[in-house]
Amino acid sequence: MRQTAIIGIGQTPVREHWDYPIRQLAVQALWAAIKDAGAKHIEGLFVGNMLSGALAEQEHLGALIADYAGFPCIEAVKVEAACASGAAAVRQAVLAVASGHLEIAAAVGVEKLTEFSGKFSGKALATAADADYEASIGLSFAALNALMMQRYMYEYGYSKEDFAPFPVLAHQNAQYNPNAMFRYPITKEQYLKAKPIADPINLLDSSPISDGAAALVIVPLKNIQSFGGSAVKISACEIATDTIGLDNRENPIVLKAAQKSAQAAYKTAGIQPRDISLFEAHDAFSIITALSVEASGFANAGKAPKLAADGVFNINGRLPISTFGGLKGRGHPVGATGVYQLVEAAKQVRGTAPDKLQVDDVRLAMTQNIGGSGATVVTSILEKI
Amino acid sequence: MRQTAIIGIGQTPVREHWDYPIRQLAVQALWAAIKDAGAKHIEGLFVGNMLSGALAEQEHLGALIADYAGFPCIEAVKVEAACASGAAAVRQAVLAVASGHLEIAAAVGVEKLTEFSGKFSGKALATAADADYEASIGLSFAALNALMMQRYMYEYGYSKEDFAPFPVLAHQNAQYNPNAMFRYPITKEQYLKAKPIADPINLLDSSPISDGAAALVIVPLKNIQSFGGSAVKISACEIATDTIGLDNRENPIVLKAAQKSAQAAYKTAGIQPRDISLFEAHDAFSIITALSVEASGFANAGKAPKLAADGVFNINGRLPISTFGGLKGRGHPVGATGVYQLVEAAKQVRGTAPDKLQVDDVRLAMTQNIGGSGATVVTSILEKI
Repeated sequence: MRQTAIIGIGQTPVREHWDYPIRQLAVQALWAAIKDAGAKHIEGLFVGNMLSGALAEQEHLGALIADYAGFPCIEAVKVEAACASGAAAVRQAVLAVASGHLEIAAAVGVEKLTEFSGKFSGKALATAADADYEASIGLSFAALNALMMQRYMYEYGYSKEDFAPFPVLAHQNAQYNPNAMFRYPITKEQYLKAKPIADPINLLDSSPISDGAAALVIVPLKNIQSFGGSAVKISACEIATDTIGLDNRENPIVLKAAQKSAQAAYKTAGIQPRDISLFEAHDAFSIITALSVEASGFANAGKAPKLAADGVFNINGRLPISTFGGLKGRGHPVGATGVYQLVEAAKQVRGTAPDKLQVDDVRLAMTQNIGGSGATVVTSILEKI
Repeated sequence: MRQTAIIGIGQTPVREHWDYPIRQLAVQALWAAIKDAGAKHIEGLFVGNMLSGALAEQEHLGALIADYAGFPCIEAVKVEAACASGAAAVRQAVLAVASGHLEIAAAVGVEKLTEFSGKFSGKALATAADADYEASIGLSFAALNALMMQRYMYEYGYSKEDFAPFPVLAHQNAQYNPNAMFRYPITKEQYLKAKPIADPINLLDSSPISDGAAALVIVPLKNIQSFGGSAVKISACEIATDTIGLDNRENPIVLKAAQKSAQAAYKTAGIQPRDISLFEAHDAFSIITALSVEASGFANAGKAPKLAADGVFNINGRLPISTFGGLKGRGHPVGATGVYQLVEAAKQVRGTAPDKLQVDDVRLAMTQNIGGSGATVVTSILEKI
């Protein structure tokens, strides 16, 4: 098994991109990554996307984006795992290079949600849940997450305001990320007064409907000298799944797939949770941040909100999380999100994050990309070379 | 790079499966393959599917099918490459095992099209074309293939009846395949009188809207002794792409991606076209059979219909094609088709095809799975051990 490295990164700003169709967003990020790598060609393209079929009536994104990027004959496929599609595509690129079949592969995550009405996007997003037993009875993702949050509050005796540190921190960081959707801070008071979505979840618990694309170029670790790009080692990229339906889980506030993929990632990288310098969490909703941090071994069950209140997750804290604003602040262009996390983690490892966001002395950065209500989780670890 | 082998195969009949939702079709094929392998567990699942999001409002098939198959914690993703989704998923399973990341992986292709009106399926299928420049102006796949067929007839001086041997042969073989959708022969006269679809394509040029699932279990070649299943070596499984739009091609009747993936497959397997014992072609429309046979080096440009008329492609001919009925006779459950082809090729290599379909002395069987109007092509070669 060959070891792999990221040699190039690229991203578009996360916005409502009314001016660009999905193919152009993808190509912008992809070419930025190829240029950053100092490469001229790629042999394979793995596209992370969830909803272009439902929303833009465009499937077959592998061939489409390879074509529009100017590589009309390479290997190319789309990989879908709901909101974890981005990192799942990265995993396939890693396998292709690790296997020796490809010498240079790219993963691009891309999603375009805002050309359509909010209602339609919400319905399309619900296809990540169990269509027959969840979505069909009206369980949107806000509703599923509300059930988890309600249970967590009951189980550990928290109130609504205990979750404020998560979105406040996300916005705090996002304001310094030029590619973030929400580049302004919010206060605890604003959080508590925000519009309810699905009790106890309100607007400021929820990541936004966004458009964007992010890309990585991946090569064998042993070949990084052949490229101009600044290389970051991929020490692990591990997928695990859980039951698709929340109701089939032993405990609805334990993300078993996150536990399993994080443990696999630690094992593959040969490290412990305490070795991690920073963690890009999948904060689609505030509750998921807490569950993700706990499942990854960074906090005991029920303790994440306490650690957040103590500042543990701030940029200068013991374990900075969502350092570029996370899904809440940077935005959540579904199939692109996992690739954004890895682009941001790579910037931290390279030491090229914006001044106010750069974590000191980063050796190991971890990302966790979550699909559905935790049914697919991809945990990745990047390492300084 | 580890070499890989198919150790188990499974399939459902290709039918209008009104009684089974997509998850049940997939699980039936998957468990049949696992049982056939003599295995109890799989570490990864790669699902080939194109349209469950659009038609069944269900994405996230990786986690869903892993869950319903009784493996709720394994690695699982969906792979999409239009009608080539099935073999593209097999390619990912091969990469995962070849890389050393997984010791046993399954690929399942599944599609359910008939629960919905024909019109809706047709519109959904058109998302494999360029949504902005082809589908939006009304170019369905029948229309795109009609353009190719028209051009081919003009270029090489064929008339409609010269294409009759392809569907006649497909039905001839399908009648002996218990899993085929159309288990009856057709005549040249029936073909010439069939209802027009998009001139010169008629109903009997066209593969049917179908439901079905097929699955493979893949392990490292060196480990086949640990399983009870009958092993077949995967000597190659190579993807290539072409422009998504037909209008951007240098020559609309040359399948460049098929040429490229076939050449890559021959190189990987270390063989020549003449070494191939049989070829499972992607006969979605009669014209595609001709173009696929030519692109793969089995006939010179413009000669495929002549060879068909001479009986070269019959079961007892020099190069049998579509030995289980192909897409025209067995049926074309889009994301499952590429896996059906490999299941059928594996049966030929094992020597377990139905009596009237078994090709003599099969050493190397080739399959070619095509997405869109040739924008993604996966060519695979299976070898007797």
